[in-house]
Amino acid sequence: MSAIAPVLDRIDANLEASLERLFALIRIPSISTDPAYAKDCRRAAEWLVEDLKTIGFDASVRDTPGHPMVVAHHDGPQGSPHVLFYGHYDVQPVDPLNLWDADPFDPKVKELEPGRKVITGRGSSDDKGQLMLFVEACRAWKEVHGSLPCRITLLFEGEEESGSPSVKPFLDANSEELKADFAMVCDTGMWNRDTPCITVGLRGLVGEEVTIHAAERDLHSGVYGGAAANPIRILAKILGDMHDETGRITVPDFYDGVEETPSQIKAAWDKLDISPLLGDIGLSVPSGEKGRSIPEMVWARPTAEFNGISGGYEGDGFKTVIAAKASAKVSFRLVGNQDPEAIRASFRKFVEDRIPADCSVTFEKHGGSPALQLAYDAPIVTKAASALSDEWPNKALVLAMGGSIPIVGDFKRRLGMETLLVGFGLDDDRIHSPNEKYDLSSFHKGQRSWARILAALTA
Amino acid sequence: MSAIAPVLDRIDANLEASLERLFALIRIPSISTDPAYAKDCRRAAEWLVEDLKTIGFDASVRDTPGHPMVVAHHDGPQGSPHVLFYGHYDVQPVDPLNLWDADPFDPKVKELEPGRKVITGRGSSDDKGQLMLFVEACRAWKEVHGSLPCRITLLFEGEEESGSPSVKPFLDANSEELKADFAMVCDTGMWNRDTPCITVGLRGLVGEEVTIHAAERDLHSGVYGGAAANPIRILAKILGDMHDETGRITVPDFYDGVEETPSQIKAAWDKLDISPLLGDIGLSVPSGEKGRSIPEMVWARPTAEFNGISGGYEGDGFKTVIAAKASAKVSFRLVGNQDPEAIRASFRKFVEDRIPADCSVTFEKHGGSPALQLAYDAPIVTKAASALSDEWPNKALVLAMGGSIPIVGDFKRRLGMETLLVGFGLDDDRIHSPNEKYDLSSFHKGQRSWARILAALTA
Repeated sequence: MSAIAPVLDRIDANLEASLERLFALIRIPSISTDPAYAKDCRRAAEWLVEDLKTIGFDASVRDTPGHPMVVAHHDGPQGSPHVLFYGHYDVQPVDPLNLWDADPFDPKVKELEPGRKVITGRGSSDDKGQLMLFVEACRAWKEVHGSLPCRITLLFEGEEESGSPSVKPFLDANSEELKADFAMVCDTGMWNRDTPCITVGLRGLVGEEVTIHAAERDLHSGVYGGAAANPIRILAKILGDMHDETGRITVPDFYDGVEETPSQIKAAWDKLDISPLLGDIGLSVPSGEKGRSIPEMVWARPTAEFNGISGGYEGDGFKTVIAAKASAKVSFRLVGNQDPEAIRASFRKFVEDRIPADCSVTFEKHGGSPALQLAYDAPIVTKAASALSDEWPNKALVLAMGGSIPIVGDFKRRLGMETLLVGFGLDDDRIHSPNEKYDLSSFHKGQRSWARILAALTA
Repeated sequence: MSAIAPVLDRIDANLEASLERLFALIRIPSISTDPAYAKDCRRAAEWLVEDLKTIGFDASVRDTPGHPMVVAHHDGPQGSPHVLFYGHYDVQPVDPLNLWDADPFDPKVKELEPGRKVITGRGSSDDKGQLMLFVEACRAWKEVHGSLPCRITLLFEGEEESGSPSVKPFLDANSEELKADFAMVCDTGMWNRDTPCITVGLRGLVGEEVTIHAAERDLHSGVYGGAAANPIRILAKILGDMHDETGRITVPDFYDGVEETPSQIKAAWDKLDISPLLGDIGLSVPSGEKGRSIPEMVWARPTAEFNGISGGYEGDGFKTVIAAKASAKVSFRLVGNQDPEAIRASFRKFVEDRIPADCSVTFEKHGGSPALQLAYDAPIVTKAASALSDEWPNKALVLAMGGSIPIVGDFKRRLGMETLLVGFGLDDDRIHSPNEKYDLSSFHKGQRSWARILAALTA
């Protein structure tokens, strides 16, 4: 008999009790942004420590300048991998309270529609529900086998919803203790209720503010118009030239380090119904590179976006002014091995090459981080995908995300760890909003999924 | 003996008395924008009426909803032309008063530098000094000849510095009385202290505000970047495409109605030292059409200027947002016979043709007026230029202006009159600023210039 089958049975048998435990955690209003709830944050950390001790973890509350971390260790068989599982026990504020159907800190199971039960309450999905999946998987495994299949370290943060100010120094100060073979994070979502997914790519980001300076002062366009450089015109021309007719970015060497997504991954993405992404915001025409699918555009291709532009007279009515300066905020989303600082330098040269001799340009740097990319065919990805596909009606999707998840970058850069991102949230979970919920199927099959992933990665 | 020589002598002989009269007018603080000075505005109008009566004009104060007009008539010989001379008796406010070296309403003659005397005081140049030139020329002529060389109507406004709200209705209500063969306005400047000029062209203007609308709301560039239309990118591309590599405007049919400036005029302009125009504002590279001189660019060629641009996040720091909309204020300076509404329509189509199918654009109209252009070789121009060249060390320049003078458009459109623009202000007159002055040479030779122009136009 396989190691996993009785664990799954135990998870099924434990469901009611695991729900009670989640409810107990949700009842603690651990809102990290509001100092009035600081004691509740500590209570949530302490609750987790006590619960983890019942499984046999060496767990402790670890102070930080902000809300405490929970760190817990459990050993595994000789030669087994060491994994770090991350989650966060803090939750978003609940305002406006009057839009909630029920007390956000009095969780319930309710039937959303026939055959679809959900757990209600703040944090039911983000991230208390999700982090307890892994805890419950460990509990069931331990109860069945008397041990865990590998060495496991848990790190639960209490400041994720308020910018994670303590994470970086905590990782640095405890790098020896926390560094594992790889990390696992349960803070993402499923493609839909039947389709789990693994996020292997997170785009990087380079931010630049560019300001074109022309005349020493604002000018009257009647007197100077036609002879004096107009910085808005120079800026518009530069921005307008940054994409070619096919939607490709024209900054030299911009695509260095960009690799093609494997064809079998693209084929899987092509089957997805992605039209709501644009349809829900009133758009329909993909604006990216010609010949690329929407999933490629938002997950696997780099972009140049203009996030803000400003210059001259912006008020009501009209002024016939030629501005002294104009500026734009420009950002690049990066993929693969694109080098943020090389792209910043190439962009600046692209701009400088287009500035008339009597004008000047200044730049302000607004952050830069490379993309985070697990190989689509990395063993942890293929094994986890197979495990997920065993649990859910549909095969697991392997995809990427357009934005960033800071903790993944911190794990990579500070601890040298790759991260497996698997989560069971759904688009309608209303995280950060009134009436947050978590599907009971996510809570139940999510536990089973993590047990299967542990089994697959340690087989 | 010519008719003009004794008139010039009489002007010379009258100089002290004419200065006293100008001082009396300057002492009346006829600030039109400040209601506290409404009685002073009326006093200035009444002073002018009384003075004009001493010359034999049929002069009267004419009420308007704002400050009154002065209208005066004097007949001329049978068959002589009828000219309308326009000026304004109101002045700018004097704040900040502490920056004045002396009481702005206590005029003096002072020596600015050895051999250069100036008249100080608010309105000494703009426009009390300039309008009195013509009055004094008429006075000397009448004293010498007992008559004037042509039928003359004077129109002095009291609201020029506050937007001239009463001019249009007054012209419409009194068009029969005010319509002359042509108008003359003394509210412009000389090229330099030795070189008079005649302004024959005033560029027209079309103003448009264009707003590109994309998604229904602002978007997160991580989630949507690469797929969702970015209105700043669309706008920048459109604005960037509005000029070609040679600086020409690419809006179709934009140059319809633009005529080449006569080669002898261009040759005269080429001799001008125009470099201070850009040098004084820290620029050096003319931004207009390749192969055109700076005077052509600012006086005789049409332009497209971007007067303002706005979109997305414009505050400090950075937000990775894709805006729902972006907008720009665009203006065109027009010359020759360019049709403002045809250009507005062509511009709108140019923009609409470049809007993706799922985005939209809205326009807001901000005024439109055609250029005003006297033929460079019109008889009144060549005669006046010859008269001015007789008076001053250097030959008179015939040039154009980049901006507009609203009264000239009103005379053209409401009364069907062309306008001869001759003035004797200098760049350092500090009109609208503390320590306004008017060169005594402008005041003296300006009177002689108008007498010569009257003689030339009625010979």
